[in-house]
Amino acid sequence: MKLLVRVRYDGTAYCGFQVQPNGTSVQAVLCRAAEDVFGFPVNVTGCSRTDAGVHALAFVAALEPKDESCRGSSWCTIPAGRVHRAFAHVLPPDVAVTGAAFVPDDFHPRYGVVSKEYIYRISDAPADDPFLRGRVCRRPKITEAGEGLMREAMLLFLGTHDFAGFMAAGSKITDTTRTVSAVSLTRDDDGCLVFAVRADGFLYNMVRIMAGTLLDVAAGHKTLADVRRAVTEADRGAAGFTAPPEGLYLRDVTYSEPIPWACD
Amino acid sequence: MKLLVRVRYDGTAYCGFQVQPNGTSVQAVLCRAAEDVFGFPVNVTGCSRTDAGVHALAFVAALEPKDESCRGSSWCTIPAGRVHRAFAHVLPPDVAVTGAAFVPDDFHPRYGVVSKEYIYRISDAPADDPFLRGRVCRRPKITEAGEGLMREAMLLFLGTHDFAGFMAAGSKITDTTRTVSAVSLTRDDDGCLVFAVRADGFLYNMVRIMAGTLLDVAAGHKTLADVRRAVTEADRGAAGFTAPPEGLYLRDVTYSEPIPWACD
Repeated sequence: MKLLVRVRYDGTAYCGFQVQPNGTSVQAVLCRAAEDVFGFPVNVTGCSRTDAGVHALAFVAALEPKDESCRGSSWCTIPAGRVHRAFAHVLPPDVAVTGAAFVPDDFHPRYGVVSKEYIYRISDAPADDPFLRGRVCRRPKITEAGEGLMREAMLLFLGTHDFAGFMAAGSKITDTTRTVSAVSLTRDDDGCLVFAVRADGFLYNMVRIMAGTLLDVAAGHKTLADVRRAVTEADRGAAGFTAPPEGLYLRDVTYSEPIPWACD
Repeated sequence: MKLLVRVRYDGTAYCGFQVQPNGTSVQAVLCRAAEDVFGFPVNVTGCSRTDAGVHALAFVAALEPKDESCRGSSWCTIPAGRVHRAFAHVLPPDVAVTGAAFVPDDFHPRYGVVSKEYIYRISDAPADDPFLRGRVCRRPKITEAGEGLMREAMLLFLGTHDFAGFMAAGSKITDTTRTVSAVSLTRDDDGCLVFAVRADGFLYNMVRIMAGTLLDVAAGHKTLADVRRAVTEADRGAAGFTAPPEGLYLRDVTYSEPIPWACD
């Protein structure tokens, strides 16, 4: 039995999810918290890496005792619906467990992913918003025409493509084909432009390069033909800049079976 | 000529708007920033005091040179639409100017107020939200029945009443009659319950005691009869607790004439 936790975090202070040689990771914070909660060392496996400064609304991590002798069906005696409370006492205020579920031992939070959704938030208001610092990408005003072009461009991402044109240099991944199943562009309560994209998987920096490409299209630095070439010919030069991490949020992760999240 | 600025701030780090013997005030931060922008000392007058930890979405402050010899129609040479940019360079990230306008010398940002609107945000989700820390009042789950009672209770605030029952002890105000012209209770994008109230003026802690009263009604600690007595008999004991400052936001201030806010 593994304990799955759904984690929400403000990534501003972290070097990303995964433990890194320099900087504090969310994974390290969760490991420490889990050991405080259970009283023995716990392995924490995440559904993805996220970059420094990237946020998560519903990250999924699997917990199990590090020592095999501690494993078994009864290592976690806290009811799933109460797990968030136990963690609330030991986690820093920028990380919270928002739900938990028990899953079989063979469940893997990364290999089992069917789709993930990221959002990228852009604030194009003339003035900075103190409530959004570190949580949005700041841009000059995007006109309605620019927004229309972004909408046209994002539709080109839909479908199965070799997305090597939307991958940061230096990535060791060889299979760069991914299937984008949904895209949208909306304005939220805070007046921010929100680009949402769902796919079966994402390459390194893929969403940030997609967002940067859309922003370049809105600004007239890239054309729809450039975006089409970036998608169909896997041409990194035809795609846009890598938008900064602070606008990016992991919003949803789905598996072949729905997770019975509990949070009382 | 006075320069009016619309100010948005996260009040977490401040002792309130007004300069206080202990703690940093938003007023002091604005004074320092204005002197940096204009090169001479500037008086800053606010539309209201706000408590420590209280936020503002659209606070109004009037600026004029401290030295009378500097005054006149041309002391500010920055176009109103550009003022937010000049301040963006010198203000800390939790305070921002979001608009500016020139008004006649006899305009007073506090005495001229026709109405103000405050909102009070309550998060009753089972888990803490890292993106809302310091920005909402945390409460246990409010049932639909509880929400219904809050809605009934808030309607009792409407109209002209002696609101002494909704004033913190120790206030020196003697005329405690105010007119509440609008109330509402909605859920926002973040799932928070938002109580909004507009009045021609507010007593010390009035909105926080109103919010606390509604929460006490939802929790069954107060009845609608208690609230009616608090309103009609100005009975502080019949009203509820003083809800904490972090849920409170000044959202809007109106004057007899609309302010021609500019922000390019």
